[in-house]
Amino acid sequence: MSAIRHALSVKRTDDFSQWYQEVISAADLAEESGVRGCMVIKPWGWGIWERIQRLMDERIKATGHENCYFPIFIPLANFEREAEHVEGFAKEMAVVTHHRLIADGEGRLVPDPEARLEEPLVIRPTSETIIGDAMARWVQSWRDLPLLINQWANVVRWEMRTRMFLRTSEFLWQEGHTAHESREDAKAHTLRMLEVYRECAEDDLALPVIAGEKPENERFPGAVETWSIEAMMQDGKALQAGTSHYLGTNFAEASGIRYQDREGGQQFCHTTSWGVSTRLVGGVIMTHGDDDGLRVPPAIAPWQVVILPMLRDNEGDAALLAYCDELRAAIASQSALGERVRVLLDKKPGKAATKRWDWVRKGVPVIIEVGGRDMENRKVSLLRRDALWGTDAKPAFSVPTREECAAGIGALLEAIQRSLFEEARDRREANIERGVSTLEALEAFYSDERRYPGWVEVQWSKPTGEALDKVVERLKALKLTIRNVPIGAAPADGACIFTGEPAVERIYIARAY
Amino acid sequence: MSAIRHALSVKRTDDFSQWYQEVISAADLAEESGVRGCMVIKPWGWGIWERIQRLMDERIKATGHENCYFPIFIPLANFEREAEHVEGFAKEMAVVTHHRLIADGEGRLVPDPEARLEEPLVIRPTSETIIGDAMARWVQSWRDLPLLINQWANVVRWEMRTRMFLRTSEFLWQEGHTAHESREDAKAHTLRMLEVYRECAEDDLALPVIAGEKPENERFPGAVETWSIEAMMQDGKALQAGTSHYLGTNFAEASGIRYQDREGGQQFCHTTSWGVSTRLVGGVIMTHGDDDGLRVPPAIAPWQVVILPMLRDNEGDAALLAYCDELRAAIASQSALGERVRVLLDKKPGKAATKRWDWVRKGVPVIIEVGGRDMENRKVSLLRRDALWGTDAKPAFSVPTREECAAGIGALLEAIQRSLFEEARDRREANIERGVSTLEALEAFYSDERRYPGWVEVQWSKPTGEALDKVVERLKALKLTIRNVPIGAAPADGACIFTGEPAVERIYIARAY
Repeated sequence: MSAIRHALSVKRTDDFSQWYQEVISAADLAEESGVRGCMVIKPWGWGIWERIQRLMDERIKATGHENCYFPIFIPLANFEREAEHVEGFAKEMAVVTHHRLIADGEGRLVPDPEARLEEPLVIRPTSETIIGDAMARWVQSWRDLPLLINQWANVVRWEMRTRMFLRTSEFLWQEGHTAHESREDAKAHTLRMLEVYRECAEDDLALPVIAGEKPENERFPGAVETWSIEAMMQDGKALQAGTSHYLGTNFAEASGIRYQDREGGQQFCHTTSWGVSTRLVGGVIMTHGDDDGLRVPPAIAPWQVVILPMLRDNEGDAALLAYCDELRAAIASQSALGERVRVLLDKKPGKAATKRWDWVRKGVPVIIEVGGRDMENRKVSLLRRDALWGTDAKPAFSVPTREECAAGIGALLEAIQRSLFEEARDRREANIERGVSTLEALEAFYSDERRYPGWVEVQWSKPTGEALDKVVERLKALKLTIRNVPIGAAPADGACIFTGEPAVERIYIARAY
Repeated sequence: MSAIRHALSVKRTDDFSQWYQEVISAADLAEESGVRGCMVIKPWGWGIWERIQRLMDERIKATGHENCYFPIFIPLANFEREAEHVEGFAKEMAVVTHHRLIADGEGRLVPDPEARLEEPLVIRPTSETIIGDAMARWVQSWRDLPLLINQWANVVRWEMRTRMFLRTSEFLWQEGHTAHESREDAKAHTLRMLEVYRECAEDDLALPVIAGEKPENERFPGAVETWSIEAMMQDGKALQAGTSHYLGTNFAEASGIRYQDREGGQQFCHTTSWGVSTRLVGGVIMTHGDDDGLRVPPAIAPWQVVILPMLRDNEGDAALLAYCDELRAAIASQSALGERVRVLLDKKPGKAATKRWDWVRKGVPVIIEVGGRDMENRKVSLLRRDALWGTDAKPAFSVPTREECAAGIGALLEAIQRSLFEEARDRREANIERGVSTLEALEAFYSDERRYPGWVEVQWSKPTGEALDKVVERLKALKLTIRNVPIGAAPADGACIFTGEPAVERIYIARAY
């Protein structure tokens, strides 16, 4: 097995962080833009995000939401209204202060002092406050509720240390915002959308996640409850892949979102918000990537199948291309995962072997090579990206007939989708330690030689306030955080790892992105 | 006919501008946001834009482009490189100067003086310069060309006078950017994308347009040639609905987009850029709206058919809803304009008549009302939004059987699509004056009593430089502009309306948005 010559220069076990950068570059997903903290998302990376957007958008619409669009600029006054929200965001926002540039007379442009804004505008880090203003206009009566809206937008949070897809100053996301009559409705909706995220992550992105409530110290600024889905990356770290917040009446009070209730009284709405972002692409890379590059789950692959004709720049090429195009048409008429199969006949010039490895690194789920001999035998050479290497350390081609290949492609793509999910789920389960019950054992566990130690499930008494702060500090010293309180976990039956008191629930502890 | 009671309070002939605002409000398309120059796009307005996006995106991809995403922030230095481009844009850009806010101690937030950016960042008014940087990295050899990319994004141009959809400080658009080996390739591509715009405008938006080249004074800053599609609004004004620019090597030289040619030499690329924006929604309103609200062409209608059950809050409702739901399913299985029919069974509470007029104002192409008697007779009551009124000044319902209704819905929607286009095209042709050949006649034409005078087609000698400036000034005094030099017009055969010299081509002159 050591004879395998992988397509990347860095292995996951060598240096996970460097491996991550290499996948992004080798799979042509994105690159640094030269603008501080901002990346350029290239066609293959963008295509994956477009697929995620489309599938998530369908799920969000299916739960009754309508899309809208709100301004990118938020007046300062909006932020001043909700105290905790300011506290959480004021530190890292891009502020627009001028609306014109002028030449400084020395060949440079400078903000025109004559065009200073009376009130600076903030570029939205999130839109609760501006959407709250609209909700206050739109909601009059209980008949207007629930109000279920969503927007796809770019947001900016000034980040000091950035990493492509995971943490960039500008990022793209969807943010859902809803208003409800009661606490019960709003809390139920918060969990409904968390479940939508779980389904999209698991079924579309093949990303196994743990859904649960974040501890108090990790709440969204201004939220009453914050819930998350957490995924385990291949280095054992956690990635918060989506959050759903129950906001109580905090934002409704700040923005004046009131309704007349069924008895004629005036009430504040209970609101929710929830979002997922381009960070999901980072999660896909760190979950499904391997030492040969990315492996894109078929449901979100821009192309699911790529056909590579072994062209020889001679008169035989026309017949080979015709043979391949018939195959392309036959595959394109098949369905997988509820949609037509997305298949590309890649006719670009270049050596077939070079092109094969480019597509391997990009992670297209199925590569089909067709040479002159394949054509003579009415066959094709098929490579599954999720099972790339044979026991002989060579690419594990199968050689079905062209008809078998086309007829079986839907089932094959669905099998790959399933297999990627199961592989990730099994790896996660193998890397959750449940035998740690003391702080010493926790410390020992994470001081171990193991490079990628994974997560620990422990029991705790759910301390709050200063008691929680102390716990957070202790964990911080170990570079650990509490990820969430998983939904559906077994009831607590032991002592709190931090206080020794009777535990009330289980939590996941991990290093995290 | 005077007995018709229209659904809007302002008629197009009373006050077109106020009528426009009323349609936007009555059709629930958008509203003022409270943030200077920015609007909130509401679900029905956003749904129309989503449809335009999807159809345009398919057309752009079908011509070989891939979508990417580039940063919203552009360093000042990028603008300083291309002199004409600076000149054109420097005056109206949002400038980010700080990356943090702090409390001022008096309950307000202010930009943190400690967090001043060394180099201010501009919010993209367009992305030629930042995409140019990427192209310079991506293009090495003629084999990398043509490079065909596109992005969907928000852009900001600080506008002093704004009008919803037509001119807002933030707007949404797609911007295509391409790099080519030769002038010929790039110019051909500029026209190819103009043709894509024409097709999308005419076939999807039912918006008849004139494609042609803009005069020198109307060129995009930094462009060698700017082409446009121009549509006539119902007040006779022109709306520039899309532009396509041949940029020569200007941006390639500013950004260093070079390639090794087939002979091994270094060459600058020839580049193009082209865009359409949310302004198209404004064009749809002003072309297809009437005194009852909006009429949305079926191809871009979020819902093409709405079924309104005449519920009576009694035990008969269940059977009526079941009858309507069977109709919904039968219609949803039909196709129109190459896609499944989008049909909504509107079960919301409320009087059927109120709901009917809400949908009339929103402009859904087909409204189907179903009452108890309709159900007994196995019939439905069908209203075409494009032919709302009968000769008796009442809504012109037809009463097909349920089966006829479902079976005929595809053809009906296609007929409505065609009819809206033809109505707009005929109106435009009736409002182009071709008999004006002197400046005096032009002046007289636009000083006429006629409120909405339309366009004038004249011949000219294509003056340039200062001679053109004089022409532009004269026209400006009449509030007129040269729209474009139409492609495919008859050759000139007369004298230039401005100089008296032999004319070289025909141009359209109009008032414009």
